[in-house]
Amino acid sequence: MRLGVCYYPEHWPEAWWAEDAKAMAGMGIAQVRIGEFSWARIEPAPGRFEWGWLDRAIETLAAAGLKIVLCTPTTTPPKWLVDADPLMLAVGADGRPRRFGSRRHYCFSSDSYLEQAQRITRLFAERYGRHPAVVAWQTDNEYGCHDTVVSYSRNAVQRFRHWLEARYGTIERLNEAWGNVFWSMEYLDFEAVDAPFGAVTELNPAHRLDFRRFASDEVVRFNRAQCRILRELAPGRSILHNFMLLFTEFDAYKVAADLDAVAWDSYPLGALENFWFSPEEKRRWLRTGHPDFAGFHHDLYRGMSRQPFWVMEQQPGAVNWARWNPSPAPGMVRLWTWEAFAHGADVVSYFRWRQAPFGQEQMHAGLHTPDRRVAQGGVEAAQVAQELARVPDCPMGPARTVLVFDYEARWMIQVQPQGADFDYLRQAFEAYSTLRGQGLDVDIAGSRDPGLAAILARAALVVVPSLPAVPPGLVAALQASPAQIVLFPRCGSKEDCVRIPADLPPGPLKGLVDIRVARVESLRPGVREPVDFGGFSGEVQTWRECLETGPAAAVEARYADGSPAVVRQGRVRYLAGCFDAATTAGILARSARDGGLAPEALPEGVRVRRRGDLLFAFNYSGQPRTLQLPAADWLLGGNEIAPQGVAIAHSPEAPPR
Amino acid sequence: MRLGVCYYPEHWPEAWWAEDAKAMAGMGIAQVRIGEFSWARIEPAPGRFEWGWLDRAIETLAAAGLKIVLCTPTTTPPKWLVDADPLMLAVGADGRPRRFGSRRHYCFSSDSYLEQAQRITRLFAERYGRHPAVVAWQTDNEYGCHDTVVSYSRNAVQRFRHWLEARYGTIERLNEAWGNVFWSMEYLDFEAVDAPFGAVTELNPAHRLDFRRFASDEVVRFNRAQCRILRELAPGRSILHNFMLLFTEFDAYKVAADLDAVAWDSYPLGALENFWFSPEEKRRWLRTGHPDFAGFHHDLYRGMSRQPFWVMEQQPGAVNWARWNPSPAPGMVRLWTWEAFAHGADVVSYFRWRQAPFGQEQMHAGLHTPDRRVAQGGVEAAQVAQELARVPDCPMGPARTVLVFDYEARWMIQVQPQGADFDYLRQAFEAYSTLRGQGLDVDIAGSRDPGLAAILARAALVVVPSLPAVPPGLVAALQASPAQIVLFPRCGSKEDCVRIPADLPPGPLKGLVDIRVARVESLRPGVREPVDFGGFSGEVQTWRECLETGPAAAVEARYADGSPAVVRQGRVRYLAGCFDAATTAGILARSARDGGLAPEALPEGVRVRRRGDLLFAFNYSGQPRTLQLPAADWLLGGNEIAPQGVAIAHSPEAPPR
Amino acid sequence: MRLGVCYYPEHWPEAWWAEDAKAMAGMGIAQVRIGEFSWARIEPAPGRFEWGWLDRAIETLAAAGLKIVLCTPTTTPPKWLVDADPLMLAVGADGRPRRFGSRRHYCFSSDSYLEQAQRITRLFAERYGRHPAVVAWQTDNEYGCHDTVVSYSRNAVQRFRHWLEARYGTIERLNEAWGNVFWSMEYLDFEAVDAPFGAVTELNPAHRLDFRRFASDEVVRFNRAQCRILRELAPGRSILHNFMLLFTEFDAYKVAADLDAVAWDSYPLGALENFWFSPEEKRRWLRTGHPDFAGFHHDLYRGMSRQPFWVMEQQPGAVNWARWNPSPAPGMVRLWTWEAFAHGADVVSYFRWRQAPFGQEQMHAGLHTPDRRVAQGGVEAAQVAQELARVPDCPMGPARTVLVFDYEARWMIQVQPQGADFDYLRQAFEAYSTLRGQGLDVDIAGSRDPGLAAILARAALVVVPSLPAVPPGLVAALQASPAQIVLFPRCGSKEDCVRIPADLPPGPLKGLVDIRVARVESLRPGVREPVDFGGFSGEVQTWRECLETGPAAAVEARYADGSPAVVRQGRVRYLAGCFDAATTAGILARSARDGGLAPEALPEGVRVRRRGDLLFAFNYSGQPRTLQLPAADWLLGGNEIAPQGVAIAHSPEAPPR
Repeated sequence: MRLGVCYYPEHWPEAWWAEDAKAMAGMGIAQVRIGEFSWARIEPAPGRFEWGWLDRAIETLAAAGLKIVLCTPTTTPPKWLVDADPLMLAVGADGRPRRFGSRRHYCFSSDSYLEQAQRITRLFAERYGRHPAVVAWQTDNEYGCHDTVVSYSRNAVQRFRHWLEARYGTIERLNEAWGNVFWSMEYLDFEAVDAPFGAVTELNPAHRLDFRRFASDEVVRFNRAQCRILRELAPGRSILHNFMLLFTEFDAYKVAADLDAVAWDSYPLGALENFWFSPEEKRRWLRTGHPDFAGFHHDLYRGMSRQPFWVMEQQPGAVNWARWNPSPAPGMVRLWTWEAFAHGADVVSYFRWRQAPFGQEQMHAGLHTPDRRVAQGGVEAAQVAQELARVPDCPMGPARTVLVFDYEARWMIQVQPQGADFDYLRQAFEAYSTLRGQGLDVDIAGSRDPGLAAILARAALVVVPSLPAVPPGLVAALQASPAQIVLFPRCGSKEDCVRIPADLPPGPLKGLVDIRVARVESLRPGVREPVDFGGFSGEVQTWRECLETGPAAAVEARYADGSPAVVRQGRVRYLAGCFDAATTAGILARSARDGGLAPEALPEGVRVRRRGDLLFAFNYSGQPRTLQLPAADWLLGGNEIAPQGVAIAHSPEAPPR
Repeated sequence: MRLGVCYYPEHWPEAWWAEDAKAMAGMGIAQVRIGEFSWARIEPAPGRFEWGWLDRAIETLAAAGLKIVLCTPTTTPPKWLVDADPLMLAVGADGRPRRFGSRRHYCFSSDSYLEQAQRITRLFAERYGRHPAVVAWQTDNEYGCHDTVVSYSRNAVQRFRHWLEARYGTIERLNEAWGNVFWSMEYLDFEAVDAPFGAVTELNPAHRLDFRRFASDEVVRFNRAQCRILRELAPGRSILHNFMLLFTEFDAYKVAADLDAVAWDSYPLGALENFWFSPEEKRRWLRTGHPDFAGFHHDLYRGMSRQPFWVMEQQPGAVNWARWNPSPAPGMVRLWTWEAFAHGADVVSYFRWRQAPFGQEQMHAGLHTPDRRVAQGGVEAAQVAQELARVPDCPMGPARTVLVFDYEARWMIQVQPQGADFDYLRQAFEAYSTLRGQGLDVDIAGSRDPGLAAILARAALVVVPSLPAVPPGLVAALQASPAQIVLFPRCGSKEDCVRIPADLPPGPLKGLVDIRVARVESLRPGVREPVDFGGFSGEVQTWRECLETGPAAAVEARYADGSPAVVRQGRVRYLAGCFDAATTAGILARSARDGGLAPEALPEGVRVRRRGDLLFAFNYSGQPRTLQLPAADWLLGGNEIAPQGVAIAHSPEAPPR
Repeated sequence: MRLGVCYYPEHWPEAWWAEDAKAMAGMGIAQVRIGEFSWARIEPAPGRFEWGWLDRAIETLAAAGLKIVLCTPTTTPPKWLVDADPLMLAVGADGRPRRFGSRRHYCFSSDSYLEQAQRITRLFAERYGRHPAVVAWQTDNEYGCHDTVVSYSRNAVQRFRHWLEARYGTIERLNEAWGNVFWSMEYLDFEAVDAPFGAVTELNPAHRLDFRRFASDEVVRFNRAQCRILRELAPGRSILHNFMLLFTEFDAYKVAADLDAVAWDSYPLGALENFWFSPEEKRRWLRTGHPDFAGFHHDLYRGMSRQPFWVMEQQPGAVNWARWNPSPAPGMVRLWTWEAFAHGADVVSYFRWRQAPFGQEQMHAGLHTPDRRVAQGGVEAAQVAQELARVPDCPMGPARTVLVFDYEARWMIQVQPQGADFDYLRQAFEAYSTLRGQGLDVDIAGSRDPGLAAILARAALVVVPSLPAVPPGLVAALQASPAQIVLFPRCGSKEDCVRIPADLPPGPLKGLVDIRVARVESLRPGVREPVDFGGFSGEVQTWRECLETGPAAAVEARYADGSPAVVRQGRVRYLAGCFDAATTAGILARSARDGGLAPEALPEGVRVRRRGDLLFAFNYSGQPRTLQLPAADWLLGGNEIAPQGVAIAHSPEAPPR
């Protein structure tokens, strides 16, 4: 567990560097990330290089005892490169190139840009790959940010056709898989297939989904090319990439497979403001962020990392990019940092050392203000650095509750939502939040994780949000697992090519639960369907299914017309609708108890997390909260947690969560 | 009165066809529509034809005793055709071609595509025109769907110029008619006139209206070309087209004039969700649709059909294309079917026989589920088939109440609404609904119907929603009619070229009601103007006029400042504002009574309709309803109607409605 | 004080002209504006001129004793000119030319169009420049209307590069000023700089701001070219331009510097509907407009005019261009006219003499209806003409309260709002409204006004809405002024190139108030921060700052956490947040009293304004209002003012406001 910071020596007078480095070390910072936007300063004109400043910056930082995380600078190709090769630009759904002037303007499908990216990566790696202070590399920066995964360029279309040919072999097989007989859409050859945009009305969903798969694979290709070079020229250094928040445009599992460790960039306040949370939630968590925002991402990215994950960029104060940008409440920068460690982070790296007084992010806070004074974030980072000495490092154990997550599931539902507000990511997040609010530790596992069988084998509860296409490996792992299983509606509702299973949903899950989803409907906001659980009642909204059940399936709850709303078969529950939050919590708690866990509703705003023998507790609320923990050995805080407070106990014994 | 179904043999294994055909016949289906999306299967490559499968499909269906409605496949030209002639694509208001990948991508103004469409139509007609089982033809499919009437292609601009030259003769006359002296917009020749889009601010309204007239005429041209071929090669067969719901982009009266019968596609739930209805209405009629949705269209399209009209596509379950897609309440598929017959339909044809498991509409229900089992819609269709035996066919008589409808009225008000929410179609629909809620049967007549004088001559009440440009024939017919006449505001407010009449509104209607509309204003939502009717009061919203009245005009109601709100002159009432629903109902009821009718408010959700000697009643509400009908001879149901219930009586005597 | 009207002889039969002229004179109209849309009638084809009609129109009007305001017709270049030079069209942010068909389609950066504009201006000026009846000229018409200041044409980009070169000298200085090291955006030469649009995400704020400065300068250039010709060929005539309402796309101070007098176009009802006012305000002021709408513009434009300002177009009835278009309440046309005179107008000119029955504005009322009868506006204009005889002309004196206004401030905050709803113009308007609601007369002064020191020297109260970049002249003038000063948050928060001052905000204002703005945050709607004023409390919303204060700065109010909310240092107050309306009113009233003024809350809807020895009062409310004025000498009305009423008194003594 250690701290880092993001630093831009090129933004400051060279005279300041040594002082900055000394201050970092003095504050307890162990490592510094640099270089991701440096291309124009390293190669200010084609073939003209200015390595000196970066050499000196690295030496200055290293001299202060700091370790370096060096980035390839490929996220911001300079203007001269764009002017020399305008076809390297990504193209929007309006058919127009996305212009220079900010960042991430390149198209993942441009071979010429890929060559340039490899060239500059090689030059960086050759120069610094074996530098003793350079302990890790970040590839590029925030792949996909600003909606840059999908490009409709000619390059992309051409490569998409090859991708399709590799996938389907013959155009007849593609026509068959996509169901192109529908609306007379059959193609004579792969060259006839275009990118799916600009049509008169809805495009074939299989066409759209394959284009998203292709676009995701293009990110994998781009990243892999850099990893190859770095592995060759920077032996023994960790290769990471900083993934993003609430972001699903590419399959992060596939990109992560080429990395050593996964990092992500944590901005709890910007995320709260810019995403789906209600105005009421946005006010309640205004200066803390949602209590499960960071945890969800920690658990998601830890699940795909081969080493302990990092937070590469940690929000240190107000940001500039949300519609409104409040400051974190005092204590939150510390809380977020400890929370990352609680969830298994190895590094928490703040973004950024000092607020820049110019450019697009001049209103983005740093650990210091532009006038070189320490800001609130800096004060709290220093506090954590001190506290770290009191808390021993320890490895993460597996959680007993597993949430199955899948990127393609989101794409598939986006391609055909059927109800305008059906949002897979939100559903998964809310399921996670419901589990966490009951004190359960959660692992998030990819539906195609090669180790899935092992993960599910040690689980007590497995929750599967709406997963239309269920991979055979997941079916087998679920069947083999001893855990309680909760299947959300739409699980098993599609084949891989966005096609309804021949025997109707839940398709391959029929072996787990003997039902036939005869009919589904989406419900506009405000429509609520009462559900009777035989003693208490709940409500379904957004989505309702009409099930027929076989003899092995017991009905646990029914709609007013008698149609099954929750079906149970052995360890498996299937939800025939989207339940309100309280009812979902009840169902998941019941399943957890059925699995031998001890869920218990935490006080509002409180979250707890176990890491090895350590128990962490966090208070996101504006009120002091009292924990009911008998923990004797408090390393930090205690049973009374102040608002935005943290408590850490050594607690090898605890209820099974 | 008979049932049909839409079927896509090309979607299913040939081995299923005979079973399907047998099941159709067994269910009581009399006719099958096929072929409208079949081009790529018939002509998979340029000039290469595969007729065999369609030959066999037709034989298989015919062998089961089914009649065939064959479609020309021109709505979905194959990709090879688009690739060979990219200029056949329609062009959007953004100046970009609308791309292949869904349907209706062709431009009505492309001569080359028109040739292709005639070529394939001729080939279809030569092969199947005289086939004994092929009893009717559908041209293309849903002209205009997905906003495809207007195209801004070069082809369209060129043809628009010729259209203008034919209309105006000289550019000077066009300049004069459009008032191009305004803002220095005068043209030197027709070649200088462009399509009206992309200007800095509002374009000349006459320019915009003429472009919409032109675009509508292009649809007429396209359809007429197919009709000519079918009349030649498919003698004795009915030619139809399936018009759409709440759709006014072309003048359906002009297209209908080339057809034998008019059909329309009825999707009550999708329409409720996607159109102007309030959230409260959308919840109230969630699984039934609005009680006047289908009736309005039945009466509209019956009014322009030369033979009894058809419902070509009847919603059989949830659809896929609305923002939210609930399932119909049990009984609604039956109710909608009987309601169509009540309004004079000859055929109700369900869309579709079986839900397709692939493609864009895979979530659109059918009479059967993809796994070949009967769905709720199928159960109800079979029930209607049985019930049909109990109800004798009989011809429609004319209704005593006539609503005058006009497509150009909507375009004109869209071109210059003056108030953002002034919606002609909605106003006409709500006037219709108000009349129907009082038990009145309604005929809808086009303002330029050649038989208008005869229609109005037998009417007791004529309602004219806001008709800016009043054709001379309508003025004469209104003058000659014995009926009570209700003129909505804005009637007579414009000349044909979107110009204020020289003597101000109501222009040519001054002979009917001696008023001068000195001033008008549009009112934002929430602004309500009280109106005193001398005993009770009402409210005006959206639109208010300031009238001066001549000696022959009596004032029936006044605004708070004394300005006339309702003026009456003999049989004619003029409304100087848009009244709230209850007040409108009161005014229309009073006019109906003045005309000798007996309007009577029906219970909420109940509608009645007479067809010849038969009286039909329908219960759209969620509660049982009791009719006050003394009908002795119940053919179906009775005075007590269950939710979603139907009652049919033989009742030659009834109050004058 | 005199009346004028806008007239389009080309719209009417020549036979009507003399009658119209006579009627104008008879009604008390003194001058007529003509010609701004006449190009296509004067030069119907390239090089073919038809001057005769305009000669005769001018003679006819002059013969009736009317003075002429002649316009250059450059706002609507004819179609033949566009067809000959398509690159003269402005280009939108979508990269597409804005097409012919309405008005203002030219690009300010087109040299070829500038030549054409100079050519036609010269021809007009040569022919009519010395005509005795032509007493004034209007250049073009409503520069910038319909978002036409910014164009992304090739011409604009090329000229922008030159503009940058002139501003920065070397590309290195530009890179430094813009902070292009951020995100690797450094340029090698000026040719590499593009127009700032279409980038993947936010563009460099300095880049965006400079482009807006450039675009504004292009308007200055265009206008100046016409002024030069008019000064040469129309000696002694006033040159004006008609500026727009709530419009800030170019720096009107810079354009005004080339004019003799500034005019503006006043449409109170359209402005109310189309701008930020709440639904509740839109209903309350539905037929009057907001009580401070016209006054704000009168005071703004008077402040930049070298002669008494004009209202060039005064709304005479309902307009056509707002989303909804109500009619003015009876009396409002008269009220607006007198209000303009109260604020120092020399001319109020109605738009238009007669409503046109054709074209885009056919629903825009005039003083007469299209059938040549007088409308309500005409009746009221005639009344004012009569009343003018009773009210002596008199010069404006300076007001004691000065509001500092700055166009770049708005651009800068639009470029980086940091909170989505932070609106400089709205804030300035609301500050103005708060002052006016307390009976204070207000002068509005530009932050770079060369006479600023003198203006502030005679002020008692100076209010500075959020002015990020504070010009040195303003700092000096504030320091030298004896007035109370109220600085809104964000004052001094940026340098000219959109960069945070090296010592943090308030930058150059630190000499006035010894604070350091350590942190800022924007707050979403609904978030309110209580502020304790030691006795009463207020609320901050939208924006909150965290200040550190030096020893000279006293804290007048604090946030709940003790952080300063209002700081006072001598004559200066600094607001560390955006206060609610009532609290703002309290702070401004306290500052006014501290400055020796006597603010007093006026009854709702009442406004008073002094012009020399005259005191004017206006009642915007729907209720009669009683003034508490001891004025003895009523020229019009009295202490009791009816709804929409006007009162004018000779009142040399009055409380210091």
